[in-house]
Amino acid sequence: MTDFHGLTKNASYKKLTALAQKPFDLTREGALNTQRIAAYSCHFNDWQFLYGTQRVDDKILDALQELADESQVIEHFLDMKRGEVINKIDGHESEERMVLHTSARDIWGDPAHPAATAQAETELNKLSDFLTSLNSGDISNENGDNFTDMITIGIGGSDLGPRALYMALSAFRISDRRVHFISNVDPDDAATVLQGLDLSRTLVNVVSKSGSTLETLTNEELVRAAFKQANLNPLRHFIAVTGKDSPMDNPARYLRSFYMFDYIGGRYSATSMVGAVMLGFALGDDALHEILRGAHDIDLAAEQPEIRNNTPLLMAMLGIWNHTFLKHETLAILPYSQALIRFTAHLQQCDMESNGKSIDRQGNKLAWQSGPIIWGEPGTNGQHAFYQLLHQGTTIVPVDFIGFRQNQHKQDIVIKGTTSQEKLLANLLAQSLAMATGQHNNNPNRCFAGNRPNSILLTDRLTPYSMGSLLAIYETKIVMQGFVWNINSFDQEGVQLGKILANEIIAHIAARKKDVNYQGSDDDLGWAMLKETGKLQS
Amino acid sequence: MTDFHGLTKNASYKKLTALAQKPFDLTREGALNTQRIAAYSCHFNDWQFLYGTQRVDDKILDALQELADESQVIEHFLDMKRGEVINKIDGHESEERMVLHTSARDIWGDPAHPAATAQAETELNKLSDFLTSLNSGDISNENGDNFTDMITIGIGGSDLGPRALYMALSAFRISDRRVHFISNVDPDDAATVLQGLDLSRTLVNVVSKSGSTLETLTNEELVRAAFKQANLNPLRHFIAVTGKDSPMDNPARYLRSFYMFDYIGGRYSATSMVGAVMLGFALGDDALHEILRGAHDIDLAAEQPEIRNNTPLLMAMLGIWNHTFLKHETLAILPYSQALIRFTAHLQQCDMESNGKSIDRQGNKLAWQSGPIIWGEPGTNGQHAFYQLLHQGTTIVPVDFIGFRQNQHKQDIVIKGTTSQEKLLANLLAQSLAMATGQHNNNPNRCFAGNRPNSILLTDRLTPYSMGSLLAIYETKIVMQGFVWNINSFDQEGVQLGKILANEIIAHIAARKKDVNYQGSDDDLGWAMLKETGKLQS
Repeated sequence: MTDFHGLTKNASYKKLTALAQKPFDLTREGALNTQRIAAYSCHFNDWQFLYGTQRVDDKILDALQELADESQVIEHFLDMKRGEVINKIDGHESEERMVLHTSARDIWGDPAHPAATAQAETELNKLSDFLTSLNSGDISNENGDNFTDMITIGIGGSDLGPRALYMALSAFRISDRRVHFISNVDPDDAATVLQGLDLSRTLVNVVSKSGSTLETLTNEELVRAAFKQANLNPLRHFIAVTGKDSPMDNPARYLRSFYMFDYIGGRYSATSMVGAVMLGFALGDDALHEILRGAHDIDLAAEQPEIRNNTPLLMAMLGIWNHTFLKHETLAILPYSQALIRFTAHLQQCDMESNGKSIDRQGNKLAWQSGPIIWGEPGTNGQHAFYQLLHQGTTIVPVDFIGFRQNQHKQDIVIKGTTSQEKLLANLLAQSLAMATGQHNNNPNRCFAGNRPNSILLTDRLTPYSMGSLLAIYETKIVMQGFVWNINSFDQEGVQLGKILANEIIAHIAARKKDVNYQGSDDDLGWAMLKETGKLQS
Repeated sequence: MTDFHGLTKNASYKKLTALAQKPFDLTREGALNTQRIAAYSCHFNDWQFLYGTQRVDDKILDALQELADESQVIEHFLDMKRGEVINKIDGHESEERMVLHTSARDIWGDPAHPAATAQAETELNKLSDFLTSLNSGDISNENGDNFTDMITIGIGGSDLGPRALYMALSAFRISDRRVHFISNVDPDDAATVLQGLDLSRTLVNVVSKSGSTLETLTNEELVRAAFKQANLNPLRHFIAVTGKDSPMDNPARYLRSFYMFDYIGGRYSATSMVGAVMLGFALGDDALHEILRGAHDIDLAAEQPEIRNNTPLLMAMLGIWNHTFLKHETLAILPYSQALIRFTAHLQQCDMESNGKSIDRQGNKLAWQSGPIIWGEPGTNGQHAFYQLLHQGTTIVPVDFIGFRQNQHKQDIVIKGTTSQEKLLANLLAQSLAMATGQHNNNPNRCFAGNRPNSILLTDRLTPYSMGSLLAIYETKIVMQGFVWNINSFDQEGVQLGKILANEIIAHIAARKKDVNYQGSDDDLGWAMLKETGKLQS
């Protein structure tokens, strides 16, 4: 029987609090040596995880193992995959849902939750058929031409994960197929995308689980207007990814509808139809299945209870060590790959929306720090930007480096005896080492204090398979941290207040535009408006 | 006579430390009212700055004014513009340079540093001539065609600021002109840009002050190889922005060289030739001058010593209140404009590389927190991503909102009685209000604690002029914070160690590739390499 309980109730909590008074000192002469690097390295799936540059020793790792065990992380993970209702807060109204993003890729072997996986397979098969029809020309535009472009309209989970994956894998695109994204309610976002697109050869993929997301519906109308103006029939061009029976599940308005299910939260939905329809169009059905296989292999491997052999679990526990015990507020994720330029933005959502919480699963105020702030940019670019603070600032920032031994495009150049890819990786290693050990100098401005905790995730090449596995490593890490912090990582009540207030203000603007007696100025879109709505007292 | 001295030596420091024990409570019934909003609002240039949602009252603002006065912020700012050597550390080897990014746009009226402005004007005139020749066809490609595309190769300051400005203003592009950026040493970055470009109609703008930046030279070679392969003469296509007499100041290799000067640091160089050449090509000479005029107007207006009438100074002091006194480690910059998608990344560099320091101007270890971590994404997108943590996380994140009353493209759509732009702005206001006041609810998971400090920068429209002024508001804020923290905001010694280590590793890889007796594997680009270089003991 598994239970959820407060972090401080674990015997290991006290132990770790004491150990945090004196974390491992990486700057001591010889402390960071090749033996340590080899010992603190985990081969998991195709990824090498190097964590010798974290401020841990065996005692601390043992205590983190105890914490993982006492928190029953693996048991909760298995419960999750089997469909237990873990999206809830005891004793209070809450979403009361299963959490089954793993089911979307559990299509090899025995599924952990057969009914959910059957639903996933139905949608995947529908998608395969659709892609085949696009390829064969059975589905085409008014003139019988193939579709070359897709506009994906979505926001948040319906945008960030899919967009990050598309950008990561655009080296593997089917030639002559491109995807464009509209997310922001800012009308300039849509205007920029529509500029110069041949709409007659463009599919529009509208993604909203509820079928009622303000930004998405607004942008859909804006794009539909452009199709109308171009004399094109939307029914040949618009497809929907939405919940079954949502307002968007409507064959009179969409060529096809693909379904998403309420047991997959938006931020965990990249491997469901939310990402799959677009990725299948851009990369093909085979590459899509490679992404899913990469993710699924992680879902299985992450059942291993020993933290030293389970990279997502180990990353979760090291993160808790750095954040909750060593009190570092943020985590920088720094991929040494330009293709991963939006991956950090996706993780920012996935992590911060999951674990940016203040109450526990029983409805009590947390007595410990939950989720960190996630930020970052690709290296080496960041080195020429914010690394100054990482090395010499007054705030310590733990770092996840992500690297690849080979590039994607197989276009490289040898200058002064090394390739660009070798230079890229050399920089990654140098940064990891410099942050850990620091360096003394008689000029105080050239001193590096070191003890900046970091680790490296390294694999051969960024491919559909490794992208799928990388995504699942982070999803799993985030979920596992939530189990230890005893929070519900699957709701997002914190976004409601702003949404309600915004809708009230929008309704007020609409009303006053109709009101012939309105005394103010239509242009006055400032705080005065809040006074009018009664949101502010005078 | 101005002097630099430690933060704690100011009488106001003690006062502020005491006041920080009880910052203004925004959640108290009626605390945030229209009177407060009106009182805590500053009209400056064309920008409205609203800070009623910060945790300050008149007493705290008075103490912040005292701190600004005691720190002689305005005097230092004037000294800087007049060319005092303020990029230095007393008693230690340091850069010993003037700091004159303001001179690059000081071309209206009496310049504060006439010699530097004369140099800026020489380059601006060279650029005007060059742009005229491009327009007239006097400069064209091998076939007499106009150039339609530009690849800008640069990294850090030679990339982030210019790229942010280009993306912000692409609505104002000359039709048929596009700019592409290559920055990362990752070979996939260049490969992606080169895909599908017509090189015969492309200019290549290589930007490096030293003429020796590893990433930039590597990418330049990669692009030159592509031109060679396309049988195009680089001398008709490549231009340079570099220091006078640098290795890149070479008419045998470049069609034109434009100069940058060592008194303008990379991260402050967007309005120098570093940004100007690209922006002039993309937007035209007039729009470029509008950007400069916007920035220059701020440089003048920011001489005002009263914090309540000087937005950059006020933002600096509020930032110090939040970071140094209230101990919030980060600052989220959230523009409600998709066009500003890379502006936060630019500020991340400008701020963190400037103020991520641990020693003061006299070479002593700081006893207070210097620069914060800067991060963020455009709204409303962020609302569907990380705002959960902003509203309900255990870590408090101060926020700068940036908004516009009108859109750029003038394409908008009315849905349910309001435009997208109105919806966008309504969301911004709603978020500001929700973060400040919070809201009680009997369901603990639906409680909002409030007291999340934030402010709003608001103007009519994102144009070349307002983009220039926005850029300078932040540059000035960053510089002024450095004066109060008594740090040198103009060097970046913290990037050296990683660079040196990387170069050693790169040299080692090159050597072992030549070494016929090398026993290891060429593919072994891991930590083993560091052992071989002697960087790690066994």
